[in-house]
Amino acid sequence: MKVDKIVSWEKIGIETIVAARRDKHLTCQHFKNPLTGEIQKFYGYVQHNWSVVLPIIDDGKVLTCRQYYQGVDMILQHLPGGNADFTDENPSDVAKRELFEETGYEAQEIIFLGIMPLSVRNSSTIASLFLALGCKKIRNAPIDENEIIEVIIEKIEDWIFKVFTEIREAPSREATFLALPWLRDKFGIDVNKIIGLALSKRTEKETIITSRS
Amino acid sequence: MKVDKIVSWEKIGIETIVAARRDKHLTCQHFKNPLTGEIQKFYGYVQHNWSVVLPIIDDGKVLTCRQYYQGVDMILQHLPGGNADFTDENPSDVAKRELFEETGYEAQEIIFLGIMPLSVRNSSTIASLFLALGCKKIRNAPIDENEIIEVIIEKIEDWIFKVFTEIREAPSREATFLALPWLRDKFGIDVNKIIGLALSKRTEKETIITSRS
Repeated sequence: MKVDKIVSWEKIGIETIVAARRDKHLTCQHFKNPLTGEIQKFYGYVQHNWSVVLPIIDDGKVLTCRQYYQGVDMILQHLPGGNADFTDENPSDVAKRELFEETGYEAQEIIFLGIMPLSVRNSSTIASLFLALGCKKIRNAPIDENEIIEVIIEKIEDWIFKVFTEIREAPSREATFLALPWLRDKFGIDVNKIIGLALSKRTEKETIITSRS
Repeated sequence: MKVDKIVSWEKIGIETIVAARRDKHLTCQHFKNPLTGEIQKFYGYVQHNWSVVLPIIDDGKVLTCRQYYQGVDMILQHLPGGNADFTDENPSDVAKRELFEETGYEAQEIIFLGIMPLSVRNSSTIASLFLALGCKKIRNAPIDENEIIEVIIEKIEDWIFKVFTEIREAPSREATFLALPWLRDKFGIDVNKIIGLALSKRTEKETIITSRS
């Protein structure tokens, strides 16, 4: 039923934890449906918030990584990022720490680009997205010897082109897309030209991946 | 430790379900770390795959929705989309069905834009993103009387500007960003101009949201 005014739903009681393993939680929260008055259960996922950063090196190139991801069972190129170590760690501090740990670089300036919720319906967990400017190499990386990460440095235009055509890690794409206004302003990036080239190069086909019933 | 070659990790055993509520699953899978040989546990979230669609009406406008989302506890503008009804439902069929159910429109052409994994580390669940062209109104919507959704029709440029400045639902942003090459090609959208205007209008500030410990 179409209504004239969309309103927030009232939370009934507090969020409970159905199951927890490490920082991964399956949660349950009741809400009152404002249309029917019915109390409805919503199940969701909650974990630590995290941060993702698009790092631009002094010479105007982009610093990216490549590693294996267990969830999708794929090797993917992506931007540096990771989880908050504690519950109220400042998102930009997480971004700086993960940038240093994964690549050995430090940023001179950090610009907040926006948040990216994990799932607006099913989770209160968010990623914070950043642009890091003037990054300088401080030491070799990754710092954590258990992290198996390859560092890749490439031209900004080449990375943006890849984001429009083949990159699959969503927060890496989002940070790059949301950084486009700054990349155009500071580095003269011509987005029209890049997407003109991208149109013919997007070769991915619709995939039917059987999901859990 | 930096290695020259990033390799896939071997799955050990099968994925087990730690807890399940409706289509939400907290899962566990063991993997063998190729560097250390250690068997490591990874916990994740699995649910039905879903589809999201950027619908363009015959007159060149965008069809969007607005509703309350329980996970982030926010009222958000977003694109039509929803979950697969069964495990191997074709993603483009899901997109067409959800477009019709939420807005009452049908598309003449559907273009696959790419996949968006829920979390590459923690989930095998993916969204499939589509562009729908030549959408025509068939009936009033939403079809499901329990869905409280407002339909908003606006100019393509205005929607893209919002995506760069205020939209927070990630799959809606991703579908729009990945559709930019087609929107420029078919409707002459000048992305450089839009992001020039967006630079000064992005007012969101870094937010410290306390995440679960």
